[in-house]
Amino acid sequence: MSTEVLIPRLAVIGVGLIGGSLARALKRAQVVGEVVGCGRNVEQLERAVALGVIDRYTDDPAAAVAGADMVVVGTPVSAMRAVFGAIRDHLAPHAVLTDVGSAKGCVVADAEAVFGTLPERFVPGHPVAGTEKSGVEASFAELFERRRVILTPHVESAAEAVDRVRAMWQATGAEVVEMGIRHHDEVLAATSHLPHVLAYTVVDTLASMDDRAEIFRFAAGGFRDFTRISSSDPAMWRDICLANRECLVEVIDEYIGTLTRLREALARGDERTVFETFRRAKHARDNFYRE
Amino acid sequence: MSTEVLIPRLAVIGVGLIGGSLARALKRAQVVGEVVGCGRNVEQLERAVALGVIDRYTDDPAAAVAGADMVVVGTPVSAMRAVFGAIRDHLAPHAVLTDVGSAKGCVVADAEAVFGTLPERFVPGHPVAGTEKSGVEASFAELFERRRVILTPHVESAAEAVDRVRAMWQATGAEVVEMGIRHHDEVLAATSHLPHVLAYTVVDTLASMDDRAEIFRFAAGGFRDFTRISSSDPAMWRDICLANRECLVEVIDEYIGTLTRLREALARGDERTVFETFRRAKHARDNFYRE
Ligand SMILES: NC(=O)c1ccc[n+]([C@@H]2O[C@H](COP(=O)([O-])OP(=O)(O)OC[C@H]3O[C@@H](n4cnc5c(N)ncnc54)[C@H](OP(=O)(O)O)[C@@H]3O)[C@@H](O)[C@H]2O)c1
Ligand SMILES: NC(=O)c1ccc[n+]([C@@H]2O[C@H](COP(=O)([O-])OP(=O)(O)OC[C@H]3O[C@@H](n4cnc5c(N)ncnc54)[C@H](OP(=O)(O)O)[C@@H]3O)[C@@H](O)[C@H]2O)c1
Repeated sequence: MSTEVLIPRLAVIGVGLIGGSLARALKRAQVVGEVVGCGRNVEQLERAVALGVIDRYTDDPAAAVAGADMVVVGTPVSAMRAVFGAIRDHLAPHAVLTDVGSAKGCVVADAEAVFGTLPERFVPGHPVAGTEKSGVEASFAELFERRRVILTPHVESAAEAVDRVRAMWQATGAEVVEMGIRHHDEVLAATSHLPHVLAYTVVDTLASMDDRAEIFRFAAGGFRDFTRISSSDPAMWRDICLANRECLVEVIDEYIGTLTRLREALARGDERTVFETFRRAKHARDNFYRE
Repeated sequence: MSTEVLIPRLAVIGVGLIGGSLARALKRAQVVGEVVGCGRNVEQLERAVALGVIDRYTDDPAAAVAGADMVVVGTPVSAMRAVFGAIRDHLAPHAVLTDVGSAKGCVVADAEAVFGTLPERFVPGHPVAGTEKSGVEASFAELFERRRVILTPHVESAAEAVDRVRAMWQATGAEVVEMGIRHHDEVLAATSHLPHVLAYTVVDTLASMDDRAEIFRFAAGGFRDFTRISSSDPAMWRDICLANRECLVEVIDEYIGTLTRLREALARGDERTVFETFRRAKHARDNFYRE
């Protein structure tokens, strides 16, 4: 399996952390022939060639997809509609189109708007893996190993196209699962988008305090880990949070409810509620990670 | 300096992560003579002897402090009043008394209640270092290296007693700073107690969702770090949060304000506010850690 060329020509539009890591992983697994990169910044693309992530590049999405067997859109979600528009009339008939966007409802809506009806060979996807770093320099072949990739095929997605996208991700060492589009957006709002919002807002709260210079000096051991995700690219996370805002606002409201109940328990000195909340959380996390 | 015996006899009441790490660090620095441990669980104390953390133990605080030059109370903050009561009439006249509690107002109030007036040789302290683990097994000599220890001497604290506590912590590799009691509690509410509350409540929110088994499976890379502090001991953190609840509730309210403003910005699709909040936070954190 690892020496069978699954994808003779791969086009990656948006060769950043995710697109770059995918290209690296597929090259390492020797399942890809040529990798064509596409982006707006030619220096970054040259860097990607120098790093061996891609074989050649163009800044024209239409040219990038010409003759490609698999097209992966790895740009921020806010750029996907424009990318779809630029490539629509240039995809090879047999080409499979997928993306890596962190929210799926909005990407599917963008594709629908551009293509009219959703293409049979379009399979929305989302690798649940990442770091707080951005750009091709931060990419690495191991990023998806033992991580989950969620595919959210729409009703018209061809089974054969889904199989190809699944095989691609499996070659990176990921476990591939399928999920409904809305369900994906609800689950990720809770497990990924909410934590990012909380990390950003807690750092922003501290940074706006009078004695902020001092405040950060006394951040204890756990603070560095707790706030790591707030070093993620703010433009990318603005896009993700807005793209998934319906689900995200819902889970923020749920969260504010939990936090307000704990605040009330603290204010009235209710030891039991405070303890039970903390205990349940520790139990759930320890159970999950068993570290 | 490192071979001068600063503390001929040290009593550590509560030989857990913090008390145990302090004893280890002082032994490693060869600045301590005998270390007497005290706790309630004899098995744990025997383990502490076997690990070389303490030289001998007793489960009677009064016996533990007899003849000790320095007494460190390393129990949860909720146990300190009882410990102060048990040792009050058994401290040597020259003994210096300190503690490691994560909140200081409550510890000082407890000491005042027990001693009548605050003893001159009592110097409240707080090493701003820790992990999510508990107990003597988790202790290690390097815990305080290059970390900050905050001393909050009260108006009656003798300068010479403060000097002794400072020298003790400096021998562990820590940087010692002084701060007012109330100011300490405000700063730590923001940098430590609030993050713990947020981590516990976000995990609890997720754990109470219908599809919780699935939810955790899709937690992405950053989630593990983000929630690490919610694996901390729930009883200890209940104690800390309640002990510092006045300052903590205040900063929780401030935080809910920030989060609510972000939620409104998301709901109305206000890209600029979302971006600016995230950007400010990333900037503040990156500036602080420069990693
Ligand atoms: N980072 C994560 O944790 C993570 C995890 C899972 C999924 N995702 C998703 O993966 C996607 C990319 O994220 P990333 O972390 O890889 O970001 P990244 O490192 O910033 O990469 C994004 C890439 O897209 C390119 N790009 C931006 N706008 C473009 C456009 N209009 N046309 C063509 N290329 C464009 C950028 O290069 P130029 O600026 O040169 O154009 C850059 O190389 C996003 O949709 C995100 O939601 C991210
Ligand atoms: N962990 C952190 O991140 C951190 C950081 C800075 C400061 N602190 C502060 O350090 C203190 C201890 O925290 P820790 O993390 O070291 O907790 P820990 O590992 O659980 O240790 C607490 C120790 O206190 C003993 N103890 C409990 N109640 C006692 C009592 N009534 N009399 C005598 N011994 C008693 C326990 O042993 P027995 O059960 O056998 O009695 C245990 O050895 C707390 O006040 C905390 O606020 C913690």
